Amino acid sequence: MKIICSKANLVKGVSIVSKAVPSRTTMPILECILIDASANEIKLTANDMELGIETVIEGEIVERGIIALDAKFFSEIVRKLPDNEVVIESDDSFQTIITCEKAKFTIAGKSGEDFSYLPYIEKNESITISQFTLKDVVRQTIFSIADNDTNKLMTGELFEINENRLRVVSLDGHRISIRNIELKENYSPLKVVVPGKTLQEISKILTGEAEDMVDIYFADNHILFEFDQTKVVSRLIEGEYFHIDQMLSSDYDTKVKVNKREFLSCIDRATLLIREGDKKPIILNIQDGSLQLKINSFAGSMNEELEIDKEGKDLLIGFNPRFFIDALRAIDDEEVTLYMVNPKAPCFIKDDAGTYTYLILPVNFNAATV
Amino acid sequence: MKIICSKANLVKGVSIVSKAVPSRTTMPILECILIDASANEIKLTANDMELGIETVIEGEIVERGIIALDAKFFSEIVRKLPDNEVVIESDDSFQTIITCEKAKFTIAGKSGEDFSYLPYIEKNESITISQFTLKDVVRQTIFSIADNDTNKLMTGELFEINENRLRVVSLDGHRISIRNIELKENYSPLKVVVPGKTLQEISKILTGEAEDMVDIYFADNHILFEFDQTKVVSRLIEGEYFHIDQMLSSDYDTKVKVNKREFLSCIDRATLLIREGDKKPIILNIQDGSLQLKINSFAGSMNEELEIDKEGKDLLIGFNPRFFIDALRAIDDEEVTLYMVNPKAPCFIKDDAGTYTYLILPVNFNAATV
Repeated sequence: MKIICSKANLVKGVSIVSKAVPSRTTMPILECILIDASANEIKLTANDMELGIETVIEGEIVERGIIALDAKFFSEIVRKLPDNEVVIESDDSFQTIITCEKAKFTIAGKSGEDFSYLPYIEKNESITISQFTLKDVVRQTIFSIADNDTNKLMTGELFEINENRLRVVSLDGHRISIRNIELKENYSPLKVVVPGKTLQEISKILTGEAEDMVDIYFADNHILFEFDQTKVVSRLIEGEYFHIDQMLSSDYDTKVKVNKREFLSCIDRATLLIREGDKKPIILNIQDGSLQLKINSFAGSMNEELEIDKEGKDLLIGFNPRFFIDALRAIDDEEVTLYMVNPKAPCFIKDDAGTYTYLILPVNFNAATV
Repeated sequence: MKIICSKANLVKGVSIVSKAVPSRTTMPILECILIDASANEIKLTANDMELGIETVIEGEIVERGIIALDAKFFSEIVRKLPDNEVVIESDDSFQTIITCEKAKFTIAGKSGEDFSYLPYIEKNESITISQFTLKDVVRQTIFSIADNDTNKLMTGELFEINENRLRVVSLDGHRISIRNIELKENYSPLKVVVPGKTLQEISKILTGEAEDMVDIYFADNHILFEFDQTKVVSRLIEGEYFHIDQMLSSDYDTKVKVNKREFLSCIDRATLLIREGDKKPIILNIQDGSLQLKINSFAGSMNEELEIDKEGKDLLIGFNPRFFIDALRAIDDEEVTLYMVNPKAPCFIKDDAGTYTYLILPVNFNAATV
């Protein structure tokens, strides 16, 4: 194989597919990036068997062929080359020479035969949304997936399609994040659970431009994202996702409107007094026109008052401050509205348009110490 | 005690003195920042017994007093306060209330009595240089101090004054870095070894402006840096520093002039093939008009050719690439000149003005494999 392409194109392609290279594996071939120039295009592929990414880069094919190169070395070499044309040439023994200006690297490659290509996905069911939307939706929900494997389903996000609505849901047992997206067309109903890792990696690749689109295809066990010159294929998480609708009551006894930035920096300040693992709640004392925040820990105490718009009953309620910080950071609105019933029932943060819903369970606290 | 000062002033002062707060200690009082408002100024101090920093911040003293506050909590609280006036008030039981707008923190302070003030330094011997120069000199030499305590003297830098010359030296057994600075006046001869940590921390505080000056005072066991509103006092390292002059021969058989940026990026590329701890040398093959760099490792091989200006004999010599990278990064010149004798004798990188000298010992290699 012999190909010529610019350093910039190579760097871009390698950095895209590298997202699917496993950090640890017992199969050395998975640590490789496959360069496939056997047809009329130069295709880079990486695949950790859960997540596979393939991207086509521009360049000239001088001699057709396939070679698998250690992803770590290859990407570091490519990154540090001078900003010029790069020639990659491999022989029958998979010895590969990378030349750029006067620099010449020789590394051992591997046969592409052992490499696992991406699974073939039949392009039936699909939706199209903008890269901006997909990136935004992931950012606004990904923080509330569970970070351990105790319940596999909790490590993924539900993508649920109903007519012209896509609903994306994540939950970890203490909170639920929901984003609703309106689609341009009507689709047949569908429910899949996409691994959180897939969404995190894809977010890093997406340009996030509103004009750039992503086609999403659904197969029985896989999901395929197609955009620009890139395909991302991921296994789905099997199983029946949690029924969240019964938890989403719209009754409330207390409704609070508060400036998001002020609320967020106030909670952020309060968390200074809590060490990692310390389960001190932040107490909200909601009264007409004022929300008092209080936290007590071994390190000291903090309290602060915010101006609010309140409807309904007064309330004293405690939360894990981390959950509020995550949700408030995800919201772009200037004002947020909180809906609560009592100190034991979940708090909802919702917008009027129904774009997002964050449900946060309160925590018990000793009211006498407040 | 009760003082009022702006958040910005507090943040600046706290971030300066925090550099002297030890990360681990058995004496909790050392983890504190002392606020001393007992006289007519607000002085912040931190002291880990090796390094002590004191800085005066602007503000109003409503009630004189002294309080020691946990450095970590205090600096995090201060940083996250709204951008406004901050009131710090402590009572007889050292309970301290920090108020800013509607936020109110209550933390437990400590008596200032147990706090170790900075040692008193008699202001006899002193020199004055610009903050720019000091910061630059440290940057250009600090990388070649030894990073372990086997030989305490190697963890510091020699500051040697002779008439109107200051020479700063660091060495780790494999290389020596030397910077010469011309002073405005003549001083009596003096030699001290300043801990590397002190110089690293002071570098972070210095503005690096050419117009801002630093006064440096020398006492028997201490050095004092005074600049802006800040005093940094450090213990000196005791003992007789290495006699380096006998190593600084100016004879050479091969002299090479090379573009610094090209040389550096070439070596930088070559190191890709070496893993941490792997002692592969980079081989320089010096011939008329060309310098060939070569590296061989388990991962592959790399070679590259650079155009050079050569005087004297051809030479094949091997080095630890790390040492060249460090020295070349420290040098600001566009071209560098290397002076060598043979494959077993040190290589010198020197400028004509004698501002800097970097000595690097070569490493053995098997010439047959090159």
